[in-house]
Amino acid sequence: MNSVKNISKKNPESLYPSYLVNIINDRLNDYLKDYKDIPEGLLKPINYCLLGGGKRLRPVLCLSTAKGLGCEMDYVMPTACAIEFIHNYSLIHDDLPAIDNDDFRRGRPSCHKKFGEASAILAGDALFAEAFGLIIKKQDCIPETKVKILREIIEATGLSGMVSGQFVDISTSRSGISKKSLEKMHFDKTARLIDVSVTSSAILCNAEDEIIRKLKIYGQNIGTAFQITDDILDMKESEGGIDVKNKKPVSQEKNTFPYVWGLEISKKIAERKIENALNAIKGIDMDFTLLENIAKFILLRKA
Amino acid sequence: MNSVKNISKKNPESLYPSYLVNIINDRLNDYLKDYKDIPEGLLKPINYCLLGGGKRLRPVLCLSTAKGLGCEMDYVMPTACAIEFIHNYSLIHDDLPAIDNDDFRRGRPSCHKKFGEASAILAGDALFAEAFGLIIKKQDCIPETKVKILREIIEATGLSGMVSGQFVDISTSRSGISKKSLEKMHFDKTARLIDVSVTSSAILCNAEDEIIRKLKIYGQNIGTAFQITDDILDMKESEGGIDVKNKKPVSQEKNTFPYVWGLEISKKIAERKIENALNAIKGIDMDFTLLENIAKFILLRKA
Repeated sequence: MNSVKNISKKNPESLYPSYLVNIINDRLNDYLKDYKDIPEGLLKPINYCLLGGGKRLRPVLCLSTAKGLGCEMDYVMPTACAIEFIHNYSLIHDDLPAIDNDDFRRGRPSCHKKFGEASAILAGDALFAEAFGLIIKKQDCIPETKVKILREIIEATGLSGMVSGQFVDISTSRSGISKKSLEKMHFDKTARLIDVSVTSSAILCNAEDEIIRKLKIYGQNIGTAFQITDDILDMKESEGGIDVKNKKPVSQEKNTFPYVWGLEISKKIAERKIENALNAIKGIDMDFTLLENIAKFILLRKA
Repeated sequence: MNSVKNISKKNPESLYPSYLVNIINDRLNDYLKDYKDIPEGLLKPINYCLLGGGKRLRPVLCLSTAKGLGCEMDYVMPTACAIEFIHNYSLIHDDLPAIDNDDFRRGRPSCHKKFGEASAILAGDALFAEAFGLIIKKQDCIPETKVKILREIIEATGLSGMVSGQFVDISTSRSGISKKSLEKMHFDKTARLIDVSVTSSAILCNAEDEIIRKLKIYGQNIGTAFQITDDILDMKESEGGIDVKNKKPVSQEKNTFPYVWGLEISKKIAERKIENALNAIKGIDMDFTLLENIAKFILLRKA
């Protein structure tokens, strides 16, 4: 058993392959420059949000999976960036007043606060469309593989994934939720896109089905753990009921693991998920150091 | 020259292949039934909007193109319905208070009026995702063809198409627009998706490049003509400054052909577009009676 108990807790940030973030940011920037003859007023919010920082977890996972499988990281870059497009589309729409009503994102005004609601809605719509555009136009692979990863992404983002998770999140926020539904909601809302960051890369790198299956277990487990530790950090960061990051009162209405299970049990659940993830890839005879470190980082991170 | 002047103006509605509408509605209904284990609160607005009537112009064009090319209409049905999904996603988002702020759609409360803004935003997002899902999972063709039509659809709906057209529409609504930008805006906002309804079907039916090129001219021309006649009808339907269909004051701020060019010149422009469309397909040695009739219907329709 690959116990997470033995992980050194000193400086967990050093576990994260931060050098990949710059490479990804450069590529995102390049892709955005490719859009010609597009209304500037629409490109501005897209640039603002997409180039506004963040740890780029999803594309970092995509690249790290490729590296572990002995595949060129650069090869999976279009898909990695497409998934980051999708992540940002979901953040922009989630922040809208009608949904989570978040005025801040990564310490800056959220998209609709900066550019207005109409621009935010359309910028999100555009990012979603162009995510598919990136894969279709830039990802170098045979059409069969392309269709395969597009299918994975649709299943992770459509009615069987992210959109439904987000819907359950907002529609249960004032009424409570069963523990089973809570897990499914976070799985749909967060874990599926994180899972697909790993599995789409594995598909592109022609990994065997059995390896893809194990990487899927890894992705789904770190995905749910990521949401749990995110909510734990939000709870810890709040001071006197104020969410410091988002500069608003901490929501007592959101159904999160720490809110439903309490802080201590939530930590244990996250720990177990990370253990499951590490165990899933331990058996693969390949160097998944990056994926292992990312899993540990998710558990131990301070931000 | 295939002059539109000789078209009988008696009962233009009879030119439209209405029998296809029921077939399409049944299939849309079937596809919606396929979604299992989806939150009911999210499926309801999707069902409400998608099964709320309409003339189904885009899927009708898709089927009619297939018929003209000697291909089974049923074969292109998943793509036809996917494009109707996309059309409805765009209507739901366009109706939102932050965008066009329309309380009514097809004589009923619009999606956000009936289900709230959050549900409307997410139902639109879901429809867009599931449109790709339909093509990926249900359209029977080789992966290369699938990627080809997905590419066409992305170009028609993303930054080089619908989203940009919609953005220009709302961002110029209070400030006026040049005649060239007006044409491009309607082309992006409306004509491209109508064009792709025809061309995606032609690609699926393995039409030769030269035929696809001609059908594209047809699609783009009827697409712009459709937007022009729509705006002419809106202007005519308004009584004392009230938009009867949408039960609100007629917008004098929207940049439409009749508003910018006046009613008479707009009619002439629409007429010329329909003539271009008819001329484009006249040279193809196939029975495009349905497409011809639809083009004439677009020009002469009373609703």
